[in-house]
Amino acid sequence: MACPLEQAMALMVTTFHKYSAKEGDKYKLSKAELKELLSKELPVFGTLEKRRDEAEFKRLMNDLDHNKDSEVDFKEYVCFLACITMGFNEFFKDDPSKHRRK
Amino acid sequence: MACPLEQAMALMVTTFHKYSAKEGDKYKLSKAELKELLSKELPVFGTLEKRRDEAEFKRLMNDLDHNKDSEVDFKEYVCFLACITMGFNEFFKDDPSKHRRK
Repeated sequence: MACPLEQAMALMVTTFHKYSAKEGDKYKLSKAELKELLSKELPVFGTLEKRRDEAEFKRLMNDLDHNKDSEVDFKEYVCFLACITMGFNEFFKDDPSKHRRK
Repeated sequence: MACPLEQAMALMVTTFHKYSAKEGDKYKLSKAELKELLSKELPVFGTLEKRRDEAEFKRLMNDLDHNKDSEVDFKEYVCFLACITMGFNEFFKDDPSKHRRK
């Protein structure tokens, strides 16, 4: 686990378990666990979303919880991170200092 | 971009562009670019796969290239990383020092 990209993936795993292990099923994020993870580990997401009120959070939880078990499992969490990463990529592509080569 | 999880996602983006910008379409990984990225940034993947011969690499490239344009775009790359991360997670779950709370 020496390369930064491998470390980045390992960090995604350990961050999930840091919160999922707090209550209930050790391998799933409850609503409270997800809220704490977002608040402490992904403040940029809160900033992007702007409104972080309860209704907004419930909508997010509902979007992430594909199998509708009221918890977010690892696969759902990774899909979420993949979506945010694609958002980061679009932002990066729009950087005026980077130009497409054709 | 202060939190480690945000930095991890940003690293996934910058690693992609570090290689995708080398030749051809700046926003897609050619076969040669993907090979270099795997070799330099994901040696653990090579280790897990064990056989890294040309046929094995062609099969991987074919698996990743969902839209069959002979290149790997950012979405395909992120799906690949998500799959590896899920593999890391299974490994983590199997750690005998971690026990499921029921």
